[in-house]
Amino acid sequence: MSKKAIILYSGGLDSTTCLAIAQSEGFAPYTMSFDYGQRHTVELAKAAQYAPQLGAVEHQLVNIDLRRIGGSALTSDLDVPKNIVDDGIPVTYVPARNTIFLSFALAWAEVLGAFDIFIGVNALDYSGYPDCRPEYIAAYETMANLATKAGVEGEGRYRIHTPLIDLTKAEIIRRGLDLGVDYALTHSCYDPTPDGQACGACDSCRLRLKGFREAGIEDPVPYVQKEQ
Amino acid sequence: MSKKAIILYSGGLDSTTCLAIAQSEGFAPYTMSFDYGQRHTVELAKAAQYAPQLGAVEHQLVNIDLRRIGGSALTSDLDVPKNIVDDGIPVTYVPARNTIFLSFALAWAEVLGAFDIFIGVNALDYSGYPDCRPEYIAAYETMANLATKAGVEGEGRYRIHTPLIDLTKAEIIRRGLDLGVDYALTHSCYDPTPDGQACGACDSCRLRLKGFREAGIEDPVPYVQKEQ
Repeated sequence: MSKKAIILYSGGLDSTTCLAIAQSEGFAPYTMSFDYGQRHTVELAKAAQYAPQLGAVEHQLVNIDLRRIGGSALTSDLDVPKNIVDDGIPVTYVPARNTIFLSFALAWAEVLGAFDIFIGVNALDYSGYPDCRPEYIAAYETMANLATKAGVEGEGRYRIHTPLIDLTKAEIIRRGLDLGVDYALTHSCYDPTPDGQACGACDSCRLRLKGFREAGIEDPVPYVQKEQ
Repeated sequence: MSKKAIILYSGGLDSTTCLAIAQSEGFAPYTMSFDYGQRHTVELAKAAQYAPQLGAVEHQLVNIDLRRIGGSALTSDLDVPKNIVDDGIPVTYVPARNTIFLSFALAWAEVLGAFDIFIGVNALDYSGYPDCRPEYIAAYETMANLATKAGVEGEGRYRIHTPLIDLTKAEIIRRGLDLGVDYALTHSCYDPTPDGQACGACDSCRLRLKGFREAGIEDPVPYVQKEQ
């Protein structure tokens, strides 16, 4: 029987590639998505639809209440920035988001008897988020092994896998294509149209489009416009 | 203006004492409770009612979905154990609970510009939960300072305060009484009656009653029975 792994899975390009990598390493993938008051839930619906097609043994959607906490353009009434290059940490940063996501993954891992959690963070194209850096992930892993019954009782050692952390977006796309990922079954835009077209202008679209350009491949998802 | 602090506040004896300690140290307290699918929500209603009376500047109730994850007598259909002494970690352990709670507190702290989080964990009467130990708290604090914009940009250093960690239940009660806490305004039972009487038999009641006995004080809350 394959070892179980939890995959933090948004339905986007990075987490879908992560899912394929976990499978290629022999893990039985359990996918977890979060409804944290994003402005659009297209991404969640697509994630739930695609997860079983992509081989997830079980998909779990967790409702969390970040909107009441506020502090981000993704969860409050601030506008999503378009066509700007940020100097520092952008307003789309969600306070402690990956910490919250990993904590739910850790809880589910403990219940499933899994010790492996995959998260598609990326330190190169990381948009300036502090919770995408290797030193953060290492500290999280140390904490996780002190937090849990299974860790304390020595049943295993939790590992946070970050297979994309050193890859450029173009390298992520090439890796995924090598593993047979159909990127038409992914969704990255922070601000899609009601019928699900990507805006082409938000941070996430721009990073994605740049990656496809650098990989020399046409992005298969539909866009309103493709900014250069 | 007082510095803000987040208090993880359940309405129970420990977290209410924590709130009083934070105030005595000059912090403006922001209280946070969690609805995580506990069997009874008496505790949440009482927490929301008492928080402003106890001096909270703002009280926030976060809904989280631990019931779907399962794995604990407090969030699944397992029976709450009565009148037994557990050898190891009891079935009332909720996987990664404090990790999840602290992660929401960290998010709120970052939004409020607070750097201090109080949690009423206790390493002596700790019921065998791994996420109540000092080494866990230290690892969490290290992680928190790598996870956040404010930590990374050097605006401050997050501190997880555990003022009860070395105290016996009797010492906690005496400390609270010195600070003027009215323990009639607290609720600890895992399994209360519909009209809010404590069962007197669950782990939490037994620890509480033992504390009051050792402090030589009568517990002011009503019980169905008081086990020795």
